[in-house]
Amino acid sequence: MNGNSFGRLFQVTTFGESHGDAMGCTVSGVPAGLELSEEDIQDDLDRRKPGQSMITTSRGEPDAVSIKSGVQDGYTTGTPIGMVIQNKDARSGKYEPFITAPRPSHGDFTYSAKFGTRNWGGGGRSSARETVNWVAAGAIAKKLLAREGIELKAHVNQIGDVEAPEVSFEEMLEHSEENDVRCAHPETAEEMQELIAAYQEEGDSIGGSIYFEAQGVPVGLGAPRFDSLSARLGQAMIAVPATTAFEFGLGTDAAEWTGKDRNDDWEFDDDGTPVPVENDHGGIQGGISSGEPIYGEVTLHAPTSIPKTQQTADWETGELKEEKVIGRHDPVLPPRGVPVVEAMLALTLVDFMFLSGRMNPDRVDDQPGKYDTDYHPSNPANE
Amino acid sequence: MNGNSFGRLFQVTTFGESHGDAMGCTVSGVPAGLELSEEDIQDDLDRRKPGQSMITTSRGEPDAVSIKSGVQDGYTTGTPIGMVIQNKDARSGKYEPFITAPRPSHGDFTYSAKFGTRNWGGGGRSSARETVNWVAAGAIAKKLLAREGIELKAHVNQIGDVEAPEVSFEEMLEHSEENDVRCAHPETAEEMQELIAAYQEEGDSIGGSIYFEAQGVPVGLGAPRFDSLSARLGQAMIAVPATTAFEFGLGTDAAEWTGKDRNDDWEFDDDGTPVPVENDHGGIQGGISSGEPIYGEVTLHAPTSIPKTQQTADWETGELKEEKVIGRHDPVLPPRGVPVVEAMLALTLVDFMFLSGRMNPDRVDDQPGKYDTDYHPSNPANE
Amino acid sequence: MNGNSFGRLFQVTTFGESHGDAMGCTVSGVPAGLELSEEDIQDDLDRRKPGQSMITTSRGEPDAVSIKSGVQDGYTTGTPIGMVIQNKDARSGKYEPFITAPRPSHGDFTYSAKFGTRNWGGGGRSSARETVNWVAAGAIAKKLLAREGIELKAHVNQIGDVEAPEVSFEEMLEHSEENDVRCAHPETAEEMQELIAAYQEEGDSIGGSIYFEAQGVPVGLGAPRFDSLSARLGQAMIAVPATTAFEFGLGTDAAEWTGKDRNDDWEFDDDGTPVPVENDHGGIQGGISSGEPIYGEVTLHAPTSIPKTQQTADWETGELKEEKVIGRHDPVLPPRGVPVVEAMLALTLVDFMFLSGRMNPDRVDDQPGKYDTDYHPSNPANE
Amino acid sequence: MNGNSFGRLFQVTTFGESHGDAMGCTVSGVPAGLELSEEDIQDDLDRRKPGQSMITTSRGEPDAVSIKSGVQDGYTTGTPIGMVIQNKDARSGKYEPFITAPRPSHGDFTYSAKFGTRNWGGGGRSSARETVNWVAAGAIAKKLLAREGIELKAHVNQIGDVEAPEVSFEEMLEHSEENDVRCAHPETAEEMQELIAAYQEEGDSIGGSIYFEAQGVPVGLGAPRFDSLSARLGQAMIAVPATTAFEFGLGTDAAEWTGKDRNDDWEFDDDGTPVPVENDHGGIQGGISSGEPIYGEVTLHAPTSIPKTQQTADWETGELKEEKVIGRHDPVLPPRGVPVVEAMLALTLVDFMFLSGRMNPDRVDDQPGKYDTDYHPSNPANE
Repeated sequence: MNGNSFGRLFQVTTFGESHGDAMGCTVSGVPAGLELSEEDIQDDLDRRKPGQSMITTSRGEPDAVSIKSGVQDGYTTGTPIGMVIQNKDARSGKYEPFITAPRPSHGDFTYSAKFGTRNWGGGGRSSARETVNWVAAGAIAKKLLAREGIELKAHVNQIGDVEAPEVSFEEMLEHSEENDVRCAHPETAEEMQELIAAYQEEGDSIGGSIYFEAQGVPVGLGAPRFDSLSARLGQAMIAVPATTAFEFGLGTDAAEWTGKDRNDDWEFDDDGTPVPVENDHGGIQGGISSGEPIYGEVTLHAPTSIPKTQQTADWETGELKEEKVIGRHDPVLPPRGVPVVEAMLALTLVDFMFLSGRMNPDRVDDQPGKYDTDYHPSNPANE
Repeated sequence: MNGNSFGRLFQVTTFGESHGDAMGCTVSGVPAGLELSEEDIQDDLDRRKPGQSMITTSRGEPDAVSIKSGVQDGYTTGTPIGMVIQNKDARSGKYEPFITAPRPSHGDFTYSAKFGTRNWGGGGRSSARETVNWVAAGAIAKKLLAREGIELKAHVNQIGDVEAPEVSFEEMLEHSEENDVRCAHPETAEEMQELIAAYQEEGDSIGGSIYFEAQGVPVGLGAPRFDSLSARLGQAMIAVPATTAFEFGLGTDAAEWTGKDRNDDWEFDDDGTPVPVENDHGGIQGGISSGEPIYGEVTLHAPTSIPKTQQTADWETGELKEEKVIGRHDPVLPPRGVPVVEAMLALTLVDFMFLSGRMNPDRVDDQPGKYDTDYHPSNPANE
Repeated sequence: MNGNSFGRLFQVTTFGESHGDAMGCTVSGVPAGLELSEEDIQDDLDRRKPGQSMITTSRGEPDAVSIKSGVQDGYTTGTPIGMVIQNKDARSGKYEPFITAPRPSHGDFTYSAKFGTRNWGGGGRSSARETVNWVAAGAIAKKLLAREGIELKAHVNQIGDVEAPEVSFEEMLEHSEENDVRCAHPETAEEMQELIAAYQEEGDSIGGSIYFEAQGVPVGLGAPRFDSLSARLGQAMIAVPATTAFEFGLGTDAAEWTGKDRNDDWEFDDDGTPVPVENDHGGIQGGISSGEPIYGEVTLHAPTSIPKTQQTADWETGELKEEKVIGRHDPVLPPRGVPVVEAMLALTLVDFMFLSGRMNPDRVDDQPGKYDTDYHPSNPANE
Repeated sequence: MNGNSFGRLFQVTTFGESHGDAMGCTVSGVPAGLELSEEDIQDDLDRRKPGQSMITTSRGEPDAVSIKSGVQDGYTTGTPIGMVIQNKDARSGKYEPFITAPRPSHGDFTYSAKFGTRNWGGGGRSSARETVNWVAAGAIAKKLLAREGIELKAHVNQIGDVEAPEVSFEEMLEHSEENDVRCAHPETAEEMQELIAAYQEEGDSIGGSIYFEAQGVPVGLGAPRFDSLSARLGQAMIAVPATTAFEFGLGTDAAEWTGKDRNDDWEFDDDGTPVPVENDHGGIQGGISSGEPIYGEVTLHAPTSIPKTQQTADWETGELKEEKVIGRHDPVLPPRGVPVVEAMLALTLVDFMFLSGRMNPDRVDDQPGKYDTDYHPSNPANE
């Protein structure tokens, strides 16, 4: 099966399954001269990893990344960066009841039907564990974007029927990592946590959504019509596990807005460049970035692994049976989804930065000219 | 700029701009032996074309497709199908005020900023006219899917705050093409039309949404993780002009559903195959089709071309000015968007049928074996 | 069938078959602001077209290109360029004996076996007529390369056992278009023509080869390991009809050279940059351009359509039969292959110029900055 | 830099550099149900590895492959197969003289010029060490092809001016692995070894070539025009380190053959299917496989690392200097290139088997139907 690569010039290719030996990815298209260490990547992996709090699964994976290639003396060399994240030795025993009886609304049935088999431990390739690869690759993308003045952040803006009020980008930066639920509005975060605890107590789970925003994106990113910035961002976000909706700008609300209300008039900024008076368009016009902040939202359905009894159909015995998924699982997905959404946003944007010629695909701009060996990271005299 | 191709095995590549000489597309990956005529394609083009009713622009394009290659004696040959749709000689004069002063919320500014120029007549490459290419290619995809028992349909389920009740697939097939607004619920269609007329009268426009559904899709389509069926479908749909949201299954509602409520238990069908009791998952589990109907929704914002005065900023004169877009424009997009959404759904599904080995990429299955020249469409004796 | 596209950032997609309605191609990735007219393209098409001389087929196609999109007021707009080249109304009657009895060493059998049918008039999609598309797209590539100081040329360096001595790039530019055989060495050209005439007289055909060279290619093009400059150039060249060998640098001779003899020592140029003392490496080291001229050679087998009686096997009647291909056909392929080889060289190089960030994918470098509407080709005041 | 992936449906993506931490690759598109172990892959890796004999470098890498994902209970699961091959801790010291002074005809200069840096130990990413990844992926491709009755083999047919006579496929299978030089003609192998020893003794190296052949390839593989079987095979083969020429069928000899001589007449086989009387076309007609054996040849230049003094230019000091590459290096490349050429041939063919719908991309054909859990490799009852 294909579908393991994302991006065209900045491209990540992944492998691995939950309860397998290791996860890993290859990142092609990283220019030379970027300072990069495993620590740079580890920070985001730690934000994604399980066992961080009461509201995440207690399964403890260290999730330590190991860079296998593409970096020398602390700088990228322009060649592919191979990364491997070892899986902990996990007991798969608790999944045995589901080998031939699919868990409700998981990928168990579809994977088995497609391939005639599946790695049944913990969801195998369909597990959200795959997103360690995305977060690892996304961390590199974020570093590159930061050099160009592009900042991005996500936070949890809805859990069940608890919705956060609109927050500023600065509030997201300041508050979203302060609480376990990763909501940038502290009071709402508390409400959300109570709601989650209530569902968790009754052995159920609940859905929610993540708001994302990118600032400093230059005008001109996107390759309409089929690879418009919005279409590619949509693909990236809908690939996030459990996503059932992607919106940008007004999203579904746009159905009820008139043209006059939604249209953003033009004025001039201080430099005499036309800028929209408002940003109801979400930073994308005609499929191309407008220079305004890009913002949108993804909806994640409730976790399907719940300790409630549910009915499944065993294709080996031909019998219906009642089962519950035992063990600790996330009662809600958005909190750990925040770094994943950020990663996919970063991977999409950085690819378009290269596609639009706004970044040099061979080397970062402040790398000294060729032959400037004083800087040359491969010069032993520098060490 | 790239981004003019969609699909990997069944691939369409397009060119053309509004008010240019012609639109055209190349469809690669059509197997040999499919009966195909220009009439097969024209039907869908006619459903998309302007000037069909009071609620569509009165600009009259005949939109006659001409097949240039890939078909011989009424059957496809397996080689690329080139199609050209001539543009009518259109006067672009009314767009002159906007050459250096972007229309609000169009692609005028982003195209000009990206390229330093743009084809300014009628939106150029950013015009929805491009979708004639999609509909033409989609008509071929639909024919192939129909042979495999896959049927698909879309209808308008919301205009402004008027929402249609849920309708069955059969109702969609029966009623959606009966009224100008393409809503399968006749009473709602009337309400929608009144609403549209009201907005139109006051020189404004309004948003809406399109519901789509595909039946008969086999289990096993999709290439997770990045090319999951949902992610690719999302890309396809968000590329549809004016789309601001894509949902499948419960969509944004999933945020408020619990795991227990959303999870679909398993039972057996008459053949002893596990099937979900319900279809809250929208026909896609783990990024792969489950055999259940695939359904979802796209939101289209209100048309941006409105005859109301709006403010723009002329980058040549450095002055703000008040302009209105003259001429007749669609006051609402979903009615003509229905065949476009169907086309993108068909293009996505047919590509996965080939990617999953469920259809022969070289020839249709009921084409007689090689050398069976009685059938052989290139045999003059058959004519 | 796929395989109708070449290039990743500068990408051409083609359709059409010999004796079909029209040939056509879509060129994606041409930056905005390039001056471009049909005449620019026609020149190379005329060099490729049949009926130019005694040694090319007398079938007279006007081969007039029509640009359908992507150009406005004489300048490209950054959007895809659609081009159509009408086919003349050709009588296919003479191909009837071969509908179910394949011509020796053509694609008749393989196409029919793959697809169960084929467009049998004149070779259909397998005809060298397809290369009009390549030459049309290549003409745009050449224009872009010329702006960067990259010049390229090909000439015929062997027909049968007549080989031209080594010629300089300047001699290629000066002499290769002076004679019908397109050999840059005038005396050899005469010999070649005599040889061709002799084979033609006896109803046979003969093979040959084309030498190509590109000058001014900057250091750093190529994406090893799989998309090294040499590998991609190889794919491009071997796609040229009738090609059976691709060589660069020393080519097959390298088998007999020692490391010491082949290795190119380094010295400094006047600017103090290391340069190879010789260019036995053919301008490519480690899969990446070295700054030295890129040169190589393709071998084209003899035309398969010959007026000699040959044996074929009719799969409809089950009988062997003796047939000859009637009509005038090229007795040798390299002369008309020269513009085709140049086109594929140009298409390969220009794609890498974009992939390596050496050219701006959105607009040519000397296009005035955005908003400079005095130049703005879409400003009617300029006309 | 991109260029780290090969194939479209069966796709390998690689990372790693000589003297780096590890080499690795991800193979996407392997169907489920293929029996696969590390031993299957190790055999070919051992044929490629250094230190096998006097005529290969004595640098001893164990080259042990570790499968990280995509295999469960000895069978593939349809998900990507991640493989890692650890590099031995290698001392890079001997490469220090070349950090800023490029070795003649290596990739040292082009990599440094492109990226402004390079991994200088042992050639870094440009090292032939990368081909461990190709051979590992190719071993999987070979297993899949063998199931379809496709066999392939390569042998060394020329070293310097010593050429082997034509050998049969059976001779290649029987003899090519019997001697260190991997030539299927034992007497010639001895001559070759003497020649190699002579060059080695005088501190020089010598070029050579590899002949390859595939039997049992079905009619119909290839996606002309740009992705014809020959063009893709060419790309694959020219990517092999040190390759300067690719030929198939008559190769460069075709320049001197007439159409009458080269054309292969048609007759019928025992089943009444047309087959060519001879195979001068090399198994490919019109870019598509004809059912005849596919054969061809690649030329590999002499190794550039030689212990002879050569001149280089140090860009840091601005001075010319005389250096020799110390340590043991292969005096000739074809012997260890044989498994690499086989791998690239296998990777090309298997991709087309999927692209042409001749193999099921989801699961191997003899895997029992879905739900047949007796066989189901994930059923613990089977163990």
